[in-house]
Amino acid sequence: MVNETQHTCSASSSSKSDGGSSSGSESSKDSSRCSTPVLDADRHERLREKMRRRQDSGDKWFSLEFFPPRTANAAVNLISRFDRMGAGGPLFVDVTWHPAGDPGSDKETSSMIIANTAVNYCGLETILHMTCCNQTKDEITGHLQKAKRLGLKNIMALRGDPVGEEWEEEVDGFNYAVDLVKHIRNEFDDYFDICVAGYPKGHPEAESYEADLRHLKEKVFAGADFIITQLFFRSETFLKFMKDCQAIGITCPIIPGIFPIQGYHSLRQLVKLSKLEVPQEIKDVIEPIKDNDAAIRNYGVELAVSMCRELLDSGMVHGLHFYTLNREVATTEVLKRLGIWKEDPRRPLPWAVSAHPKRRVEDVRPIFWASRPKSYIYRTQEWDDFPNGRWGNSSSPAFGELKDYYLFYLKSKSPREELLKMWGEELTGEESVFEVFTCYITGEPNKNGHKVTCMPWNDDPLATETNLLKEQLEKVNRRGILTINSQPNINGKPSTDPIVGWGPSGGYVFQKAYLEFFTSSEIVTALLKVLKKYELRVNYHIVNVKGQNITNAPDLQPNAVTWGIFPGREIIQPTVVDPVSFLSWKDEAFALWIEQWAKLYEEESPSRMIIQYIHDNYYLVNLVDNDFPLENCLWQVVDDTFELLN
Amino acid sequence: MVNETQHTCSASSSSKSDGGSSSGSESSKDSSRCSTPVLDADRHERLREKMRRRQDSGDKWFSLEFFPPRTANAAVNLISRFDRMGAGGPLFVDVTWHPAGDPGSDKETSSMIIANTAVNYCGLETILHMTCCNQTKDEITGHLQKAKRLGLKNIMALRGDPVGEEWEEEVDGFNYAVDLVKHIRNEFDDYFDICVAGYPKGHPEAESYEADLRHLKEKVFAGADFIITQLFFRSETFLKFMKDCQAIGITCPIIPGIFPIQGYHSLRQLVKLSKLEVPQEIKDVIEPIKDNDAAIRNYGVELAVSMCRELLDSGMVHGLHFYTLNREVATTEVLKRLGIWKEDPRRPLPWAVSAHPKRRVEDVRPIFWASRPKSYIYRTQEWDDFPNGRWGNSSSPAFGELKDYYLFYLKSKSPREELLKMWGEELTGEESVFEVFTCYITGEPNKNGHKVTCMPWNDDPLATETNLLKEQLEKVNRRGILTINSQPNINGKPSTDPIVGWGPSGGYVFQKAYLEFFTSSEIVTALLKVLKKYELRVNYHIVNVKGQNITNAPDLQPNAVTWGIFPGREIIQPTVVDPVSFLSWKDEAFALWIEQWAKLYEEESPSRMIIQYIHDNYYLVNLVDNDFPLENCLWQVVDDTFELLN
Repeated sequence: MVNETQHTCSASSSSKSDGGSSSGSESSKDSSRCSTPVLDADRHERLREKMRRRQDSGDKWFSLEFFPPRTANAAVNLISRFDRMGAGGPLFVDVTWHPAGDPGSDKETSSMIIANTAVNYCGLETILHMTCCNQTKDEITGHLQKAKRLGLKNIMALRGDPVGEEWEEEVDGFNYAVDLVKHIRNEFDDYFDICVAGYPKGHPEAESYEADLRHLKEKVFAGADFIITQLFFRSETFLKFMKDCQAIGITCPIIPGIFPIQGYHSLRQLVKLSKLEVPQEIKDVIEPIKDNDAAIRNYGVELAVSMCRELLDSGMVHGLHFYTLNREVATTEVLKRLGIWKEDPRRPLPWAVSAHPKRRVEDVRPIFWASRPKSYIYRTQEWDDFPNGRWGNSSSPAFGELKDYYLFYLKSKSPREELLKMWGEELTGEESVFEVFTCYITGEPNKNGHKVTCMPWNDDPLATETNLLKEQLEKVNRRGILTINSQPNINGKPSTDPIVGWGPSGGYVFQKAYLEFFTSSEIVTALLKVLKKYELRVNYHIVNVKGQNITNAPDLQPNAVTWGIFPGREIIQPTVVDPVSFLSWKDEAFALWIEQWAKLYEEESPSRMIIQYIHDNYYLVNLVDNDFPLENCLWQVVDDTFELLN
Repeated sequence: MVNETQHTCSASSSSKSDGGSSSGSESSKDSSRCSTPVLDADRHERLREKMRRRQDSGDKWFSLEFFPPRTANAAVNLISRFDRMGAGGPLFVDVTWHPAGDPGSDKETSSMIIANTAVNYCGLETILHMTCCNQTKDEITGHLQKAKRLGLKNIMALRGDPVGEEWEEEVDGFNYAVDLVKHIRNEFDDYFDICVAGYPKGHPEAESYEADLRHLKEKVFAGADFIITQLFFRSETFLKFMKDCQAIGITCPIIPGIFPIQGYHSLRQLVKLSKLEVPQEIKDVIEPIKDNDAAIRNYGVELAVSMCRELLDSGMVHGLHFYTLNREVATTEVLKRLGIWKEDPRRPLPWAVSAHPKRRVEDVRPIFWASRPKSYIYRTQEWDDFPNGRWGNSSSPAFGELKDYYLFYLKSKSPREELLKMWGEELTGEESVFEVFTCYITGEPNKNGHKVTCMPWNDDPLATETNLLKEQLEKVNRRGILTINSQPNINGKPSTDPIVGWGPSGGYVFQKAYLEFFTSSEIVTALLKVLKKYELRVNYHIVNVKGQNITNAPDLQPNAVTWGIFPGREIIQPTVVDPVSFLSWKDEAFALWIEQWAKLYEEESPSRMIIQYIHDNYYLVNLVDNDFPLENCLWQVVDDTFELLN
C-alpha cells in the first residue's frame, strides 16, 4: 500500500497556527490515525463496513441465526455452541426476538441476554432481532437503549406477527417494520446498523410481489443497511428477487437466507409458519424417507450445498445466512463443504477479545483470568475505559464483585454428577486433591476411570501451549504444587507459530515463563527461602485467603509476561502480572474452591472439610522468570524447594 | 524488597462498595502505584527526597555552583560545560542570581534562562538562587511564577547585598532571607524545595555567631528544606558549625560549600567579597607562588581533596557543594580523586531525559531527533502531556515552529570559521557534499586537513553505536546516500551492554535497524522499485521539501524501533518511527541545509547554490527493517538500488 500525499507547504511551515493542508502543521495525533495499533481491522469496523470490505476483497462469508432457548440449561448449551461455531469464523450471528419469552428482560433465556452473551462473552458480532407490533413506542425505545448499553450494535427490524387472527393497527405503536426503522434512525441516529427482512416470493400478506418489493424499498430508504431474506428452495428464486430489487433501485447488500433441511417435522413446521410452498421435486424425495432423520439430513445438506454453490457462482452473492434451528451438524457440514468454514488457528491476541464497542481498544489483561475469560469480562463490564498499551497507565475502576458463580455464562458446563466423577465422589485427604490436579494435567483417567476434563479454574481441557510443560507440571502437582495457570518462556517465535503465535504475520512473539499454584504454608516457607537466591530474576506474589501478601514486585508495577513485535507497529503486550489485580483474582480463585468444589458435598462431610481446609490454609503463589532468553528456572525453584524440605 | 501487607478481609470481599482496608476493594489503579514503570527513581523524586535517599543508602554525592555568564558566546560554552560536568553525576547544579544582570529576564545570559537551560535542555536537577533585597514583593512573585512555569523546582532563598554602603529596610519588600522563605511557602505552598545559606563562621554582618545560628534556625523553621554553607578553609570550621546547628535543633541536611583555590586573584576577590579570613598556613604557601597559576591550582586541589576527605570521614557529611567559578578542571579533578565523580555509561533511556516535572512520565520519542535532543525539547516545550507507554496513544499537540536556529542552546557550538573548515570553504558540486558526509563518518580529515566533528543534523561526533555501522555508512555516503541518523538491529542484548544498553540492570534491549538519509530523486526512483521486493519487511517514508510523501506505513501507525524488557516491569519502547511527526522533522531537517550550511556562503555564490539545489531537489528517506532477529537487510536494499542504477 502506497499513500502518496501531496503537501503544498514550504519547508519551514511547521507552525501550530498554520492550519489546513500543510504537512508541517499536522498534529502528532492526527485524526486519521487510529490511537491503538490495529492488529485486527475487524475490531474497529461496524458490520456494514465489514460486509463491504469482504465484498471488495472477494472473500465469501457466512452468518448464523439462533433462537433463544427455553431453559437455563439449554442457554448454557447454546453458549457453548456459540463458542464452537464461532470458531468457524461467522461474520455475525443473530438472535431472534421471541415476544412470548419476555425478550427484553434480564432472564437468562431472553433474546436480549442471549445476544448480550454472544457479543460480550463470546466475542461475536451480533444482530438482535426486534419486532414492533403489540408494543408501545416507549417499550421499544427502552429495548433499544438497553441493547445499546449492553454493547449490541445491530438490529434486525421486523414487524412481528399480530396476536389475533386479524391484523389490527396499533395506536400508540408501530404497525410496520418501516416504522421501526424510522424510529431507530430518529432516536439513535447512526448508532445501530439496521437489517430488514426480504421475501423472495413476496410477503404472504402483501397485495402482490411488486407491492412487497416497494415495501422493501421503503424500509431501505428509511435507513436500513442491508437485507436478509426469508428462506427459499431454489437459487433462481433468490437471483430473480435480487435482480428485481436492483431494478427498482435497492442497492444495499441482500443476503440469502439458507435453510438446510434437517428433518421432516421441522420442515413442515417452518413451512407452515412462513406460508411457503415446498417444491414438488423436494417433496418427492422427502416423503418416502420421512422417518429416516439421517437420510433427510444428508439430503438437506446436499440440497443446501448445491443451492449455495449456484448462488456463489452467480457472482451476485457474497455472503450466506444460515437458519441453524440452534443445531450444529448440518450447517457446519454445509459450510465445510463449501469451503467457507475457516477455523483460523491464528489469534489476534493471546486471549479472546470481546465485541463490545467500548472494549475495542482493550489490548492488555492480567494473566490470572487466562482460563476464565468470561469471568474477567463480567467483572470488568462496568469499566468505561479499557487498558490499552500499558496496564499501569489505565485508570480503570475496581473489579466487580463475583458472587454470581451460577450465572449461566459463567457456570461450569458439566452437571454436578459429572463433576463428582471427575473431582471425586469422596475425598480422603489432601493427596486425593493432588491426584485430581495431576489427572487434569496428564489427561489420564482417575482411579475410578474418569478423565478430568475441567477444573474450577479452567473451563476447558489443557491448552496446547500448556502441553509444552506437561511433564514438569505432572511432577509438581503430584507433590502438592497445585497449578492453575502457566506458560512457557518464548524468545521470539514467529507470530504465525501454530502453538504460541498470535497477531498479524511477519511478527515475533515473546513470553516470560509463568507459574501459578495453590500450595501449603509449609511449602511456601521453604519456597521463600529458595527465592532469596534468585533475587530479581524471579518475581513472586504469595497470598492467602485472608490477604496476607508477600511480594518482591517493585513499586506495585505490573510485569509484562507476553508481548509481540510486529512490522510497522508499536509493541503489543497483551498479558501482565499485575500485583494490584492479583488481590481481586485471589478472592475469586479461593472462592472457586468452595463454590465449585466444596459445595458438591454435603455440609460437614469429610470431603467438604478437606476442600475447606485447603481454602483456609493454602497460599496462592505466582512466579515469573524474568530471564526469558535463558532456560526457564521456575522448575529449578520448585526442585530446590522440595530439596530444602527433605 | 519484601512488602508484607496484612489484609483483614475475607475471601470474597472484592466488592466495589466495600471500601477501606480490604485487599479486594483496591482499585486496579491503586494510588500507591506510579502510573509509569519507574526506570529511574530520580525522575520522580524531589530534590529533598533524592538527598534523603542518598543519605540513607550511604551513597556520597556532590553538586556544582555556576554563575550566569556575561556574553551570549559564554552562555553557549557554559551549556556545553553543563553537558560535560553533568556526565559526572552531580545531584544538582545551582545558578546564582545576579541582580545587575537582569536575572529574571529572557536574555540568554540571565540567571533565569541559564537555569531553564540546565533543567530543560541538559536534564539537570537545578536550584535557582534568588535574592530579595531591593525588589518589591510583586517582582519576586513574578520571578517565582516564571521559574515554576519553566520547570524549576528549587530555590535558594537569599537576602542579597544592599545597594548602598548602609543597610536600609525596604518598605514594600523583604529585608531578610527568612521573609523570602516565608513568602515562597505562603504563595507556592510546598511546590518548591527551598535552600538557605549557612555561615560556618557566622554572617559578617551578624551581631554574633550565636545570633547568626538563631537566624539560620528561623529560616529553617520558616520552611527551608536544607542548608548550603559559605566556603571555609578548615574542616573543623564546618564540623563545629554543624554540631552547633544540631545543638539548637536544626535537623535538615547541611551541605558544606567547597571552594578549590584556583588562582591567587580569584581567591583574593572572593575573600574580599565574603569578608572571610584566609588562614595563615594557606597564605604561607600561596604568597611565594602567587604568579604560578598551575602551582596554585595544584595546591588548591590538594587542599580541597584533603579537606573533603576529612569531612566525608567524619560521617556527618553526605554531600559536597562545589563553588566552580564556572571552571571545570580543578573541581573535576577533586571529584575524581575523591572517587565521587561517576561517569555512568548506563542511560535510563536511550535519549537524554529532561528534568522538567511535566516531562517526568515521558518515555517515548520519535527517533528523528536522536542527534538534536535540545531541538526536540524546544519544539515540544508547550505540550501539556508527554507520550508515555505508546506514542500512538498520546494526544500531544503539534510540534512548535523551529525558527530560532540561533537560540543559544540550539546553536552550533562551532563558530563560522570552524564550520567552513569542516564543511568546505568552497563547494564544487554535490560530490563535495558527499565528501563532507563521508569524512564525518570516517573521522578522517577532509582534503584540507580538517576533521569533520559535527554536521547540521548532528551536534556531536558519531555515537559509539553508530560506529558499529561505520564501514557500510562510509560506503553509501560516498555514493550519495547522505546519512543523518541510523541504528543497528539488536536482538536482546543485556541492558548493561556498554554500547547499546540502557535502563536498569537485569533487562534486555532490542532494536530494529534504522537508516535515515537525504538522496537524489534518481536514487529514490530506483530505491522504490527495490523496496517492492521487500514488502512489509521494510517500512519506508520518503518525503521531499515540498511535502511529497511516499510511505507503506499501515494506517499511519508508529513503528517501535527500540524497546527494552526489564524484571518486574511493563515493556518500555523509547523510540518510534512516527509517520506523522516525520513531516515536522522533515521541515527541520531540510531547513538545516539552508540555515546552518548554505548561509555560511555569500548569496548567489556557487557553494550556496549547490546546497540550495540539494535542499530543493533531494528526498529525505527513512527505512526500518522489521525483521530484527535476522541480519540487517537495509545495506542489501541500498546495494540493490545501486545495482539497478548501473
